[in-house]
Amino acid sequence: VVIQDLVITPVAFHDPPLLNVWGTHEPLALRVIVQLVTDDGVVGLGEAPGGSALLARLLAVREHLVGMDVFALGRIESVVHHALGPHTGLGDRLATFAPIEVACLDAQGRLLDRPVSDLLGGAVRERVDFAAYLFYKWSHHPDPGATGSGPSDGEPDAWGAALDPDGIVAQARLLVDRYGFGSLKLKGGVYAPDIEIDTIAALRDAFPDHPLRLDPNGAWTVETSIDAARRLSGTLEYLEDPTLGIEGMSAVAAATDIPLATNMCVVGFDDLPAAVRQDAVAIVLGDHHAWGGMRRVVELGRLCRTWNLGLSMHSNSHLGISLAAMTHLAAVTPTLDYACDTHYPWNSGDDIIVGGPLPIEGGSVAVPTGAGLGVELDEERLHVLHEQYLSLGGGERDDTGYRRRIEPGFDPAVPRW
Amino acid sequence: VVIQDLVITPVAFHDPPLLNVWGTHEPLALRVIVQLVTDDGVVGLGEAPGGSALLARLLAVREHLVGMDVFALGRIESVVHHALGPHTGLGDRLATFAPIEVACLDAQGRLLDRPVSDLLGGAVRERVDFAAYLFYKWSHHPDPGATGSGPSDGEPDAWGAALDPDGIVAQARLLVDRYGFGSLKLKGGVYAPDIEIDTIAALRDAFPDHPLRLDPNGAWTVETSIDAARRLSGTLEYLEDPTLGIEGMSAVAAATDIPLATNMCVVGFDDLPAAVRQDAVAIVLGDHHAWGGMRRVVELGRLCRTWNLGLSMHSNSHLGISLAAMTHLAAVTPTLDYACDTHYPWNSGDDIIVGGPLPIEGGSVAVPTGAGLGVELDEERLHVLHEQYLSLGGGERDDTGYRRRIEPGFDPAVPRW
Repeated sequence: VVIQDLVITPVAFHDPPLLNVWGTHEPLALRVIVQLVTDDGVVGLGEAPGGSALLARLLAVREHLVGMDVFALGRIESVVHHALGPHTGLGDRLATFAPIEVACLDAQGRLLDRPVSDLLGGAVRERVDFAAYLFYKWSHHPDPGATGSGPSDGEPDAWGAALDPDGIVAQARLLVDRYGFGSLKLKGGVYAPDIEIDTIAALRDAFPDHPLRLDPNGAWTVETSIDAARRLSGTLEYLEDPTLGIEGMSAVAAATDIPLATNMCVVGFDDLPAAVRQDAVAIVLGDHHAWGGMRRVVELGRLCRTWNLGLSMHSNSHLGISLAAMTHLAAVTPTLDYACDTHYPWNSGDDIIVGGPLPIEGGSVAVPTGAGLGVELDEERLHVLHEQYLSLGGGERDDTGYRRRIEPGFDPAVPRW
Repeated sequence: VVIQDLVITPVAFHDPPLLNVWGTHEPLALRVIVQLVTDDGVVGLGEAPGGSALLARLLAVREHLVGMDVFALGRIESVVHHALGPHTGLGDRLATFAPIEVACLDAQGRLLDRPVSDLLGGAVRERVDFAAYLFYKWSHHPDPGATGSGPSDGEPDAWGAALDPDGIVAQARLLVDRYGFGSLKLKGGVYAPDIEIDTIAALRDAFPDHPLRLDPNGAWTVETSIDAARRLSGTLEYLEDPTLGIEGMSAVAAATDIPLATNMCVVGFDDLPAAVRQDAVAIVLGDHHAWGGMRRVVELGRLCRTWNLGLSMHSNSHLGISLAAMTHLAAVTPTLDYACDTHYPWNSGDDIIVGGPLPIEGGSVAVPTGAGLGVELDEERLHVLHEQYLSLGGGERDDTGYRRRIEPGFDPAVPRW
């Protein structure tokens, strides 16, 4: 069974004004949907982060894959690397291969009538836990007309504002009530450390039994990180990327009993030897989109186990194909026993899969048992989200530019505190 | 599709009197054949090293696997670990799981009508290179009546003696002529280092372009290893386990430019952190029988690549099911680019697969393209080899005891030189 075509569709979906270290999420978030068409008529699905660079790379490799055996993942990966060439960085090549790998695995599963988890060694759990992903956020998008329609109408959106500890506690309560999340992660690096530490304290009071995580996205100096870690000691399951770089993380790790996690200083296999040598992190956040596919993250799991590192899962804004892939992946990776990150609730149901968003219940997602990833593409919704993409006139994610419309002097430089 | 039964058959096959550090191969070598019967009627094949301990463990886990989904490898592995319990060492548990994993993968491939290599990510090569495995050996088995029939009739066997450098060169020529091997590995630790170094020199003269390896199986002290490595410099592709232990290997590695390989000081994932930290080895010899299955060795490949270690493949005396599994595994592991070890030619065709031994041509084996492992069990041959096993009255491999019948004072202790 060979690849006949790769249909690559950029899409945009509604996203609330979530705050992070780089700025504010724009009204529309970008993804790319891959439909891998086989000569058998079976179509495999993949999903990748949006943006014109990755889109261009996917379009560039497309013709090279036509005629290849959909089971020959090793060869397909080689072709992707060669087609993009060494002037394309390794990480960019792996990010290009990732949605193709997922689409191939989905196609394989459909051809064989087995779930993708079976192709990766078999699920060891029936449900996968996810964490509530808490964001400081504005009450509404300030400039809806400029970048899309939807809940950005000047009135507070369904989530409301979260500009202080109380706002985050209220948001957490809403997410826990609605989805049953059993772990809470706060996206930090937005306000001064005092405020974020107060927010964690407020979450601890309101949710005494929920594991808590804080992710300042490298916004802190080593000194600030060490001081903050001292004050956070005993409250966090892990502290994610308080500061940038293996050197910095290593210095912080040596000064705190809080496990440090990362998706910033270890973003590929090549980063691991130094991270291990310098005891820089206790937990790696894998992400099949960044690491080069689902099989790679399974391998990462073995590697983490060998070096006594924990494994958790990173997320960007995403749709249901990615959620299905993340769920299969976590299901087959025994040591991925932290609740996974997901932005999924924030897309407010603006998805492209049949039947609407995959349900999150009791804080977890059931591992799909249908063939392949177990989700079907809703062509009509795909069309709607593609139109939303086209309404932007192409474009890139620009959290900083968007923030600056409101705060012209906003400076995304880090370390900030 | 669930497991209905596990038919476990101990077998014995003819083996010439090959010399190693522990003694001499007996006339019959032991293996265990696993037939995993599914409720679909499909049967998956696996093969494991013989010996009563592993046989007993396979029999002990058997009933626990009945009713399990043949695709649920992660859960099957858990059941094996739990059934054997923590008083069974991790390595023994993994060695028990390995043939079951292979049999499950074979069954999966047959159910899906795809080769096992496709289930592991797809072959990246169509043929897999193997190395000629050279042994010092006696001309014939000295005591044929005691332990089996066959070529052990007091007359020289088809291979002849190899008791000195000339004998090994003649043996190499025979193996190269017959199978086209492009790499040569000498099993060392049999004679004093001077003789084995002379043997390598003779091989280098006779085969100027063949990569050469020497494996003294830990028979040398650190000092002897360093001295030998100095004399071997420039002639070896790698030197395998000149001395025992990570400390010793590390000391040797620091003193030589010859890459050191191991299947003795790194025999599982837990051994890798120390080996890496101490720069003890440059090349790991994986073996799916010992590491817990084919998926594990794929993961080992990623790990070796991450830490810039080479990956090669270890072999014990084995039959065609193992050779097929080794070939699929090497085919899907891009970095397994050393010629693999194999004892296969030494079994002289005494195999249990339909059509006789898998052909080795041009030093390589074609990756089977049929469903599953791509080999079929010859029930009649299985019966013959099982009868050969029964003729032994059970038993263990005992290279030392066998050698002592001829050399009563033989002492297998190492380091010997």
